Amino acid sequence: MVAAQQAKRRAGRPPSAVLGPAHITKAALKLIEQDGYKGLTMSALARRLGVAPSALYNHVASKADVLLLVEDHLMAGVDVSGFGAEPWDEAVRRWAWSYRNVFARHTPLINVIAVLPVTNAPQTVTMYEAVTAGFLDAGWPQERIIDAIVALESFIFGSAFDVTAPEDIFDTGTLAADNPLFSAAVRSRSIRNSASPGSGSAAGSSSSSSSSSSSSDSAFRLGLEALISGLRASLDPVEAKPAV
Amino acid sequence: MVAAQQAKRRAGRPPSAVLGPAHITKAALKLIEQDGYKGLTMSALARRLGVAPSALYNHVASKADVLLLVEDHLMAGVDVSGFGAEPWDEAVRRWAWSYRNVFARHTPLINVIAVLPVTNAPQTVTMYEAVTAGFLDAGWPQERIIDAIVALESFIFGSAFDVTAPEDIFDTGTLAADNPLFSAAVRSRSIRNSASPGSGSAAGSSSSSSSSSSSSDSAFRLGLEALISGLRASLDPVEAKPAV
Repeated sequence: MVAAQQAKRRAGRPPSAVLGPAHITKAALKLIEQDGYKGLTMSALARRLGVAPSALYNHVASKADVLLLVEDHLMAGVDVSGFGAEPWDEAVRRWAWSYRNVFARHTPLINVIAVLPVTNAPQTVTMYEAVTAGFLDAGWPQERIIDAIVALESFIFGSAFDVTAPEDIFDTGTLAADNPLFSAAVRSRSIRNSASPGSGSAAGSSSSSSSSSSSSDSAFRLGLEALISGLRASLDPVEAKPAV
Repeated sequence: MVAAQQAKRRAGRPPSAVLGPAHITKAALKLIEQDGYKGLTMSALARRLGVAPSALYNHVASKADVLLLVEDHLMAGVDVSGFGAEPWDEAVRRWAWSYRNVFARHTPLINVIAVLPVTNAPQTVTMYEAVTAGFLDAGWPQERIIDAIVALESFIFGSAFDVTAPEDIFDTGTLAADNPLFSAAVRSRSIRNSASPGSGSAAGSSSSSSSSSSSSDSAFRLGLEALISGLRASLDPVEAKPAV
C-alpha cells in the first residue's frame, strides 16, 4: 500500500514537495493547535499530511525530530535584529517582545520547548548565538550570559501564558469581602486599563488593543523594564549592591 | 452498584473520610504526576479513590472543581510569612523561592493554573491578599500592584520549568563550530557550576545541590534580584527614568 501510494504521489508531484520540513512543521503546528501537544503523534501527523506513517518516517525519524522542526520554526520568528545594531537595552526589548508574541500563539508548546535540548536545532542555536554576541558587546562576562538569557526566557515563557489568561482571572467573587486589599487592587487595575485601552501599545507589542491584551502587555512591560534595568545594574558592582 | 458500594463503605469508615477534599486533592496530584494533566479525568480519579464516579460527583461537581482544590493546595504551600514581617525585598524573595519550588514539583499544572480564574479558590486569594498587603505597606500604588505580581509570577512559572530542564539543554553538539560565542558561554557556565556546586544554595533555594539545580538556581537568583531591584527602582520616578 505504501509503495502504491508513493508511486501514485510520484506520478503527481514529488513526495519531497509534500513532505518537506515546512509542510511537516505546518501540519504539526495545526495538530497542536487543535488538540494540544498530546495531539501530536506520528500517525496523526501522517494522516494530516495524507501519507502513510512509513512515508513520514522516511523524512523524520521520530516525534522528537518533528518537535525540533517546530522549535526551529518558532525560534526563527524571534527578532534578534537589534543585537549588533542597537544599544543592548533596545535589542533585548525587541527580542523579548517578539519572543513572547511567538509563544503566546503556541502556549501548548511552552512546557515542552522550555526543557528541550537545542543540540539538533540549528535555527534555535543561531538565535542564541546572536543574543550571546549582543551580550558580549555590551560587556557581559561570558560565564554569566547563559544565566541572564535563561532568566529572561523564564519571564518570557511565563508571560506568554498570561497573554491567553481570561480577563476575569483575578475576580474574587464572593471572596472579595474577606480579601479587600487584593480585590481593590484588581479593581483599580481594571479601571486603569479600561480608561486607557490603547495605552498598552508599544513597538513590538501585540497589535490587539483588547482589555485583556492591555493587562498582559502592561505587566510584561513592567517586568521586562525591571529585568533590563536590574540586569544592567548587576553588571556594575557598585550599582548592584542592594540598598538596605 | 453505587448504592451497594456506598453502603459497604459506610459499614467500614464513612465516605467523608475517603472523599474529603484532602484525599481528592492527593489522588488528583498522583494522577497528574503519572500521566500529566490529561491523566486527570473524573473517572480515573474515582478509580484511584476506589469509588464509583457518581460518589465522586457528590463531592466535586466537575474536573474544574478538582482543579480548584489542587490549585488551593499548592498555593497554601507558598510562603507569604515575610509580608508584614520583613522588608519588602526579603518578603518577595522568600515568597518567590517557595512559589518556584512548589511549581517545580508540579510543572504539568503550570499551563493550567497560570490561566485559571481564582474566583472560587479561597487559599489562592488569601495568598494574593497577603502579597498585596505587603506591596501596599512598601508604598506601591494600588493600581500597579497586580501588574507587579503578574510579572513576578510569570518569571516564577517559567523558572519552575527550568528546574526540570536537562543539564545538557544548551549543548550545541555539531553546531558548536558555527556558533562559537554561545557554545563558549555555555561551556564557561558549566565550568563555573561544577567548580562551585554548592554555591547556588541560599535560604529558600532547593535543597538539592546537583549541577542542574545549581544552574537553575543561579539563573533564578540573577533574574529575581534584577526584578526586585528593577521593580523597587520603578517606584521612584527619578531612578526609574531609563538611562540612554
